[in-house]
Amino acid sequence: NETMRLQVAFDLLSLEEVLALLEEVHDLVDIVEIGTPLILKEGLKAVTKIKECYPDQVVLADLKIMDAGALEAEIGFDAGADMITVLGLASRTTKSAAKSTAEQHGGKIVVDLINHPHPVQEWEELRKIGMDFCCIHTAHDDAQQHNTPLETLENFHKVHGGSRVAVAGGVKPSLIREMKSFPPEIVVVGSYITGAEDAREAVQKIRKAMD
Amino acid sequence: NETMRLQVAFDLLSLEEVLALLEEVHDLVDIVEIGTPLILKEGLKAVTKIKECYPDQVVLADLKIMDAGALEAEIGFDAGADMITVLGLASRTTKSAAKSTAEQHGGKIVVDLINHPHPVQEWEELRKIGMDFCCIHTAHDDAQQHNTPLETLENFHKVHGGSRVAVAGGVKPSLIREMKSFPPEIVVVGSYITGAEDAREAVQKIRKAMD
Repeated sequence: NETMRLQVAFDLLSLEEVLALLEEVHDLVDIVEIGTPLILKEGLKAVTKIKECYPDQVVLADLKIMDAGALEAEIGFDAGADMITVLGLASRTTKSAAKSTAEQHGGKIVVDLINHPHPVQEWEELRKIGMDFCCIHTAHDDAQQHNTPLETLENFHKVHGGSRVAVAGGVKPSLIREMKSFPPEIVVVGSYITGAEDAREAVQKIRKAMD
Repeated sequence: NETMRLQVAFDLLSLEEVLALLEEVHDLVDIVEIGTPLILKEGLKAVTKIKECYPDQVVLADLKIMDAGALEAEIGFDAGADMITVLGLASRTTKSAAKSTAEQHGGKIVVDLINHPHPVQEWEELRKIGMDFCCIHTAHDDAQQHNTPLETLENFHKVHGGSRVAVAGGVKPSLIREMKSFPPEIVVVGSYITGAEDAREAVQKIRKAMD
């Protein structure tokens, strides 16, 4: 699919590891995601550092905002993030506050629909208020129990198509091939790449599955 | 109420500010909360530093875990937190994984019921699996629009009582007095104290309202 983009989620536990991996693969990555665990551990300095090293790279900070939408979004954009995430399950007020802050910074919001009981309807509402992207997302803990975002994506795609839609949760080449009849705009890949012995080879396999 | 405890949420934007404030008020605070905005900005070093300076102080890291329950809980307890938060809206698998990790570390979990549509039933389930505390929590963005956690607390108290229950969201002395007939075990106070000209005086006013 010509418009599919690759987001790689760096959930490693140190900035140094992320920088080493990025050196290997950055030219094959469309969006660099700094994952929540790394943010919790070290704060947003990874985002700032990566924008210094790769100014043209799009960087997403996975803040998973649930409260204090303006304040937390501000922290993300001030650190240099191009995109940040807000939880779909946050209150409407929180999501709108994050969106207003994103607009002030020329940044984008991804609404993470993780664990949302009604993702199709939620995105219907959020599109109306101009929210930039959504992410169909199976929790890591559930993906480890062999749940996938496929079924939700298929239902979602029937209503909303794939534009401005990201998919995350246990994504690997076989899963990407299964999405071919309802392709999302963005596939988010984490441990398949960051846990691989040869990260560049893993990215190339993902890219091949996306073609 | 003799069992009410005071948790102060430090949502300030630097570790230095938190340390300066703590020096003024720590003897009057039962639980020191390092808030999500500070964690997003600087990571968990504030938790580690405060445990170094005040080893007997109970410190809560407001991680608001929504995914990767074991991994993120581990990061919080490794930094020295005694208690961490997990979102009530996270999947059951995520919450259970965080709880198991807390047990391994001798730490506690607070389930933040922010924006949960069915907090009473949720806590019914979570008590059964031994979850330590819950928090009735009005989002900051909604509290600014004059919403309070009072009505939810009152309904919650009828079923569950106040033991192991915390309350957060725009809490100030007048709100604490209104809780007197359905008192929670823990009141969480943020900007009323951290935004005060005289923080110690603000804590004393809160303490007086709790008596």
